[in-house]
Amino acid sequence: MSGLTHFDESGRAHMVDVSEKPVTARLAVARGAVKMSAETLALVTEGRAGKGDVLGVARLAGIMGAKRTADLIPLCHPLPITKVALELTADPALPGIVVEATVKTGGQTGVEMEALTAVSVACLTIYDMVKAVEKGMEITGIRLLLKEGGKSGRFEASA
Amino acid sequence: MSGLTHFDESGRAHMVDVSEKPVTARLAVARGAVKMSAETLALVTEGRAGKGDVLGVARLAGIMGAKRTADLIPLCHPLPITKVALELTADPALPGIVVEATVKTGGQTGVEMEALTAVSVACLTIYDMVKAVEKGMEITGIRLLLKEGGKSGRFEASA
Amino acid sequence: MSGLTHFDESGRAHMVDVSEKPVTARLAVARGAVKMSAETLALVTEGRAGKGDVLGVARLAGIMGAKRTADLIPLCHPLPITKVALELTADPALPGIVVEATVKTGGQTGVEMEALTAVSVACLTIYDMVKAVEKGMEITGIRLLLKEGGKSGRFEASA
Amino acid sequence: MSGLTHFDESGRAHMVDVSEKPVTARLAVARGAVKMSAETLALVTEGRAGKGDVLGVARLAGIMGAKRTADLIPLCHPLPITKVALELTADPALPGIVVEATVKTGGQTGVEMEALTAVSVACLTIYDMVKAVEKGMEITGIRLLLKEGGKSGRFEASA
Amino acid sequence: MSGLTHFDESGRAHMVDVSEKPVTARLAVARGAVKMSAETLALVTEGRAGKGDVLGVARLAGIMGAKRTADLIPLCHPLPITKVALELTADPALPGIVVEATVKTGGQTGVEMEALTAVSVACLTIYDMVKAVEKGMEITGIRLLLKEGGKSGRFEASA
Amino acid sequence: MSGLTHFDESGRAHMVDVSEKPVTARLAVARGAVKMSAETLALVTEGRAGKGDVLGVARLAGIMGAKRTADLIPLCHPLPITKVALELTADPALPGIVVEATVKTGGQTGVEMEALTAVSVACLTIYDMVKAVEKGMEITGIRLLLKEGGKSGRFEASA
Repeated sequence: MSGLTHFDESGRAHMVDVSEKPVTARLAVARGAVKMSAETLALVTEGRAGKGDVLGVARLAGIMGAKRTADLIPLCHPLPITKVALELTADPALPGIVVEATVKTGGQTGVEMEALTAVSVACLTIYDMVKAVEKGMEITGIRLLLKEGGKSGRFEASA
Repeated sequence: MSGLTHFDESGRAHMVDVSEKPVTARLAVARGAVKMSAETLALVTEGRAGKGDVLGVARLAGIMGAKRTADLIPLCHPLPITKVALELTADPALPGIVVEATVKTGGQTGVEMEALTAVSVACLTIYDMVKAVEKGMEITGIRLLLKEGGKSGRFEASA
Repeated sequence: MSGLTHFDESGRAHMVDVSEKPVTARLAVARGAVKMSAETLALVTEGRAGKGDVLGVARLAGIMGAKRTADLIPLCHPLPITKVALELTADPALPGIVVEATVKTGGQTGVEMEALTAVSVACLTIYDMVKAVEKGMEITGIRLLLKEGGKSGRFEASA
Repeated sequence: MSGLTHFDESGRAHMVDVSEKPVTARLAVARGAVKMSAETLALVTEGRAGKGDVLGVARLAGIMGAKRTADLIPLCHPLPITKVALELTADPALPGIVVEATVKTGGQTGVEMEALTAVSVACLTIYDMVKAVEKGMEITGIRLLLKEGGKSGRFEASA
Repeated sequence: MSGLTHFDESGRAHMVDVSEKPVTARLAVARGAVKMSAETLALVTEGRAGKGDVLGVARLAGIMGAKRTADLIPLCHPLPITKVALELTADPALPGIVVEATVKTGGQTGVEMEALTAVSVACLTIYDMVKAVEKGMEITGIRLLLKEGGKSGRFEASA
Repeated sequence: MSGLTHFDESGRAHMVDVSEKPVTARLAVARGAVKMSAETLALVTEGRAGKGDVLGVARLAGIMGAKRTADLIPLCHPLPITKVALELTADPALPGIVVEATVKTGGQTGVEMEALTAVSVACLTIYDMVKAVEKGMEITGIRLLLKEGGKSGRFEASA
């Protein structure tokens, strides 16, 4: 299948051979959001003031999720992650929480999936912690913002 | 924090005590999508005809992901899942792939998180398998469609 | 596909719905072997006398492997295992080590896969521990000996 | 114990120190098979034509299983796998399915166990998916075909 | 071995058969502590005021650790945990942090190991987060305080 | 927070960026103990003579636990461990079992947490295996003895 590198010439799924690729510094940044009502967002942001830190729990879940990426995504290579950071920001205009993850490694493949997985798990965790008050929340807009390193070079999402 | 059950009265995160809740039949259905260009969607759907089954791989990843929910979501209870099924459908209008997951259990808490996690992992897997041809894809609209069983009763998302 | 229950009517893989099946006592016994040279077998069995307990390590790996079955086998239901025991016996006639695993649960599906996984992981562990002296060993004859409980009833392998 | 490197001089199990070994390109190929009746084999191979892809599911399980090797085999070193591919072929003469796995890494120890684990998990998955029609199947002949790289050099199984 | 139930009559490790034990409500409470200098303790407790929540991270790690107990402890039965809560308290007299975990289940065996594992993982996490300022900290006094449910009845540690 | 590197300047937990740190040889040694009655200790040590090898099981659990460190400790980097060894010694003066773990890697961060986790999991396993005869045992004195490699240099615990 032309272009879909996760299949061999017979269309069978495989984990792509990256043995010959050089180890280079890799960076990926991904973003997503959980949309909720303004009332729910107020509950979440108030919590930061000491009554129950939804965002702190979600941040940690995202970091730990990044480390499980190769366990979850069938054809993903295991990678020695060297940095994971998540920024969770209340966005009253959404309204909701915007999650942005930055992941680094020195490796033979990129860390896009690690960054996207970190965002996804953080968003799921926000949903889990807040679902008692609002079941209709939506996880949305999960995408890659930036990728650096490797043969395919720099990718930056258009705004 | 009023309503946020994952925190105790002092605002400390905990796994809620469900010991006294009865074991009942539980069902959850969640949905999400991966938006991509029409050209990429054509590549993915052609694959179903035998050249590389992106959707088959993603379906399996979603099923296995559902089983890892309590590992990923910090305050989620482990549950004996009794059914997981995913439907992945090409939607030319999006354009993209729509993912819908149905999960069942007999347990003391619901399986919303399992259904949402199944959808998320399937969407991430689609992204992973197709990113070589399009890095700008977006995972979007992940939400709970239906929930049955348990004290809080039936939830059905508004259209 | 007639008979292959892990696919729905459209041929899509799913985790079969067992919600309606009663919880019953389940038992499965599986067996397999690692064939090796008589010299290697002597090394392994001497170890039991205190110089390095290959069989003790393999037994433990098998028990722990049984607990990972639902993580490894995509469409397997997670089950609350209530017993795992492995018997590892030197068989000079093979020559090699015969591994037999017994697994029990009270659940809605059987524990055949848990017993077969326990045997497989124990055999792999024997291979790992002994490969420095013989790389040509063979893992062989892994099969279900006995299954009890559940709607499909008792299965006993023909000799 | 002479030769059994997984034990120290007192016979205690340990994870061998490979700190001083150079990082070299490593390759391992392993093979195994699931024996079944000709009728069952026909069911499985027909499925490839779109009614339920047993071999596709087993291939994926094998790839993911390779990544879990160090979790399953107690004294195995964690390794950054750089390639996993599985070939599953119907063999009417057996009758059954032959599974062959190829694994690569750049590391300080070999990937024999990863290749053997990939084969084992793929075979177990075939058993799981087909057991509803034949419980008497047998997993057999799991062995290392080829190993390259590292101090101990090339190993090729005799036919 | 008289009394050591994790071995059979031949001294082989096994996972004890609990199939015949009734499902009853189980509770366990465990405690432990991390001893550190008064200066380090001050750093940790100040953090609670918003500059870096060591105790919040450790609490979450303990909760998630409780869910991994059967993965870590070879002969432990997997159990459907119904509650986990951790209390982390600064003790200026130690000086250090005291960690107390409460775990509940409805199951066929107790949750002592889950409570002790939760405490251990929380203590290890405190060590990890604070080690940059004090490597000489000590994890100490991890023990079972209370156990309820099951045939062996109530256990309460002497002061 | 001055000194606590696991938080950024805003006090948010993150996995520290080690991308720029050189890969160097790293070593860590940690120690801990399980205190029990002299009678229980006698039971455990007799077992070594062939009636049930508590220490062998605990050693293996510790080795496998070291490999799970980054899964358990939220902000720990995954590391390619190159050696794990545990020594378990009966100490009649305690009375109890002293556990010492040595871990090596070539990496960008140290293996203190892997050594401490190995000790903790081995101690928990001893508790699990012996708790049927004595529930009042205590896990105690878990600390880092030695650390070598990396920018912060050598650390050796004071006696």
